[in-house]
Amino acid sequence: MAEPISGSIPLSALNPQYLHANSTSHTWPFSAIAELIDNAYDPDVNAKQLWIDWKRINDVDCLTFMDNGAGMDNEKMHQMLSFGFSNKQGVGGHAAVGLYGNGFKSGSMRLGKDTIVFSKNQDGMTVGLLSQSYLQAIGARYVVVPIVTFKKDGEDKFSAMPEHSNSLKAILEHSLFGTVEAVLSEFKAIDDGSAAAGQSCSGTRIIIWNLRRSGDGQMEFDFETDKNDIQIPFNDCTDGREGTSARPKSVPPMQYSLRAYCSILYLRPWMQIIIRGAKVKTQLVSKSLAHTITDQYTPQFLKQSIRIIFGYNTKSKEQYGIMMYHKNRLIRAYQRVGCQLKANAMAVGVIGIIECDFLKPTHNKQDFDDTEEYRKIKYNLGVKLKEYWEEIRYKRKAENPNSTTEVKDIEKTPDQQWDSEYRSCRVPEEPEEPGQEQPYEKTFKKQEKKKKEQQKRNRQMISEDTEQSQSPFATPVKESGTRQSTRAGLRRT
Amino acid sequence: MAEPISGSIPLSALNPQYLHANSTSHTWPFSAIAELIDNAYDPDVNAKQLWIDWKRINDVDCLTFMDNGAGMDNEKMHQMLSFGFSNKQGVGGHAAVGLYGNGFKSGSMRLGKDTIVFSKNQDGMTVGLLSQSYLQAIGARYVVVPIVTFKKDGEDKFSAMPEHSNSLKAILEHSLFGTVEAVLSEFKAIDDGSAAAGQSCSGTRIIIWNLRRSGDGQMEFDFETDKNDIQIPFNDCTDGREGTSARPKSVPPMQYSLRAYCSILYLRPWMQIIIRGAKVKTQLVSKSLAHTITDQYTPQFLKQSIRIIFGYNTKSKEQYGIMMYHKNRLIRAYQRVGCQLKANAMAVGVIGIIECDFLKPTHNKQDFDDTEEYRKIKYNLGVKLKEYWEEIRYKRKAENPNSTTEVKDIEKTPDQQWDSEYRSCRVPEEPEEPGQEQPYEKTFKKQEKKKKEQQKRNRQMISEDTEQSQSPFATPVKESGTRQSTRAGLRRT
Repeated sequence: MAEPISGSIPLSALNPQYLHANSTSHTWPFSAIAELIDNAYDPDVNAKQLWIDWKRINDVDCLTFMDNGAGMDNEKMHQMLSFGFSNKQGVGGHAAVGLYGNGFKSGSMRLGKDTIVFSKNQDGMTVGLLSQSYLQAIGARYVVVPIVTFKKDGEDKFSAMPEHSNSLKAILEHSLFGTVEAVLSEFKAIDDGSAAAGQSCSGTRIIIWNLRRSGDGQMEFDFETDKNDIQIPFNDCTDGREGTSARPKSVPPMQYSLRAYCSILYLRPWMQIIIRGAKVKTQLVSKSLAHTITDQYTPQFLKQSIRIIFGYNTKSKEQYGIMMYHKNRLIRAYQRVGCQLKANAMAVGVIGIIECDFLKPTHNKQDFDDTEEYRKIKYNLGVKLKEYWEEIRYKRKAENPNSTTEVKDIEKTPDQQWDSEYRSCRVPEEPEEPGQEQPYEKTFKKQEKKKKEQQKRNRQMISEDTEQSQSPFATPVKESGTRQSTRAGLRRT
Repeated sequence: MAEPISGSIPLSALNPQYLHANSTSHTWPFSAIAELIDNAYDPDVNAKQLWIDWKRINDVDCLTFMDNGAGMDNEKMHQMLSFGFSNKQGVGGHAAVGLYGNGFKSGSMRLGKDTIVFSKNQDGMTVGLLSQSYLQAIGARYVVVPIVTFKKDGEDKFSAMPEHSNSLKAILEHSLFGTVEAVLSEFKAIDDGSAAAGQSCSGTRIIIWNLRRSGDGQMEFDFETDKNDIQIPFNDCTDGREGTSARPKSVPPMQYSLRAYCSILYLRPWMQIIIRGAKVKTQLVSKSLAHTITDQYTPQFLKQSIRIIFGYNTKSKEQYGIMMYHKNRLIRAYQRVGCQLKANAMAVGVIGIIECDFLKPTHNKQDFDDTEEYRKIKYNLGVKLKEYWEEIRYKRKAENPNSTTEVKDIEKTPDQQWDSEYRSCRVPEEPEEPGQEQPYEKTFKKQEKKKKEQQKRNRQMISEDTEQSQSPFATPVKESGTRQSTRAGLRRT
């Protein structure tokens, strides 16, 4: 039943049903797509470009992901089609996002039932199949993954390694590619992608089919509304009355437009993403804000300060909260903290940006593990947010004492005009050294502190007077011991 | 490298690191515990009792879960220590919660690094080890799971099957139980549990050690505050100033007290849960509400109506939202919908209860898959919630026209006094037939409809007058075509 390694101790096995079960952690389809983007982005692949497309192959709707990164050999392909084999490491300033060895499986199996992976490097070409339909058709009790490597057999001639003949048979029978020629032509596409980038021929091409459909047979993506985008259709809350209500203003475009999501997926861009033929224009969130300030916060458990940027969203005041990145990758978007969680209209319209490399993302990379560290960060982000919000209101009041307009209602222009055209995928726009800079001057906080001290002094003076006059306005002082020592201190001055 | 089945096609493999990766879907530790509770609850095990304890074994902190359900043989144990092998089916009115074949792995590996499972049924006794420390110690490249079955060898004498000797060696070396006697004594505990329930000797005992600790070495659970509970400590948002601030009122006890969570985990109780020696008192959420009404809703995609219960939370007006169950198991608690999501204080304090068997829970069973069906349900729950809220306010106004007190501020007494003592774990309190009953009479909605019709009639009458008198109060009618046909219609009557 199980492979006898370590004497006769059984292996933990994988049932085909697990492929679906594992994919259910992606409740939002872009979360699944992001896993495939991360794989191309990560330093072990280090693609310069990633093309995402919707194609029909043999009349079947497919999603395709093609990169011109390092490519895989047979062993790497087997690891990719297995679980938990991740040995990704950062290279220079380029940290690895992947850490669980699960993204490809959970991501691809969330988007469709079947996936085929073509990969090419200097040593050869390898194709692998992860297919629920195939496993179902052969009545597999365990997840088997046909993998075939082709080696050069003469000028421009490739042939499958003889020991992979059963895998080849399975792929030709159970994928969209019924002949060796059809399989080889997909490797040709990788060549073209590499050539376009002026690179040596390597890369990976993933094709997903039997794409998920909703209960009524509709595709889960809308490929029509924008021919250069992949969108999540808005028919979500009308119950049969499609088209009668519009998407609420509080829904940020990144939630339904893949193009918008990809534009902010990485804090500092390293790779160009091309969706349906059009380049994604990288957007630095911080450059789209008004009244931008930089604050910092030093968690006790870290002993190092973290930079927080706050500003007002100039695009929609209804989209606000903290954008939380982890090793350059967006994990939580519009996470409301502190006063934003309460029904008091405080800090509405304010966006925060923070990179939390010390937290651990969860299984689907859409949240952080619920640790004390995470809770502390959220709490303290709330404190910093309130300080920022009070500061901006205070300044506004100082500049224009009679204004009753809220900041969020008037700002339409970001502090910095940012040309959002893609510039360079290798050099981060602004090399940032967190902790090197000073947080902004908190005028309001200082004023409040001063006020309180003044009030305290006033109370003390009244209290001293009271001892002689018993003024009815005196603040009652309960701890007489404390008071006396204070008075003693005052007298000494 | 991989087991050659189906000719020579490789198996997808499991790396030991995957055990941790897979467990990260449980961001909240009670979500992991719930998986272990579900396993005992489900019809294939069908335990009458489940004991949850905190124990020190050989000076090591352990969480233990023991049930007196069906128990497992060697093959079932191997499935439990593998991934995706779920063939659970409902029995009678008792539906299976488990569906992914992953709960034990993701749950136990979230709580600690190592787990040992003792199980007993009429055929024998089997012990299995799922241990990250063991796999690390032997430098395993794949997840191996030592499993040993003991067979009766004479009166009260059991011996391990010879073919499991390597597994036995691994368990004695790498678990908390260093001798065969120590292992056998844990099966004895299962006997005692079964005997207490007057049942034949079967059941399962799970012991988890190397429990998770936070960055500063603290246990993630608080076993001290309440000796009969397992709590999540509150030091989450003070950043070093522990003890200075209190848990906010808006945090429901189920979020930090395992006892409170277990009391509402199942809509209809089937199994008794005993936490640290004290029985959990089942609480029917619906019985703790004031102004309770039953509404219903028929989703277009379902063609069957679903019951929704609404009422005011009498315990804390700051804890509100929809309690969403799936096949009797709580999935989403306090899910805010519709007007509760907006900063307008509408429907604050209102609780809803719904059972959505047609939705699909996600990987960690703490949310539903983000489908169109789920979005429609949430939208329509919002509509029904608003109707309820308006109805209650309308009734209140009718009864007491001068009152300005909000309903949420005054209700402290539930409609039904519910004796929360555990009664029977086999018979649901009220056999419910969704769709058999009528929704409540929506007086406010009817009044509003009547008002609108009256206004429409008034406008029409004014408009007719206007044609003769050109009254300045007439509502301007833009689409004259429409108007004329309306008038024609009126004249015909």
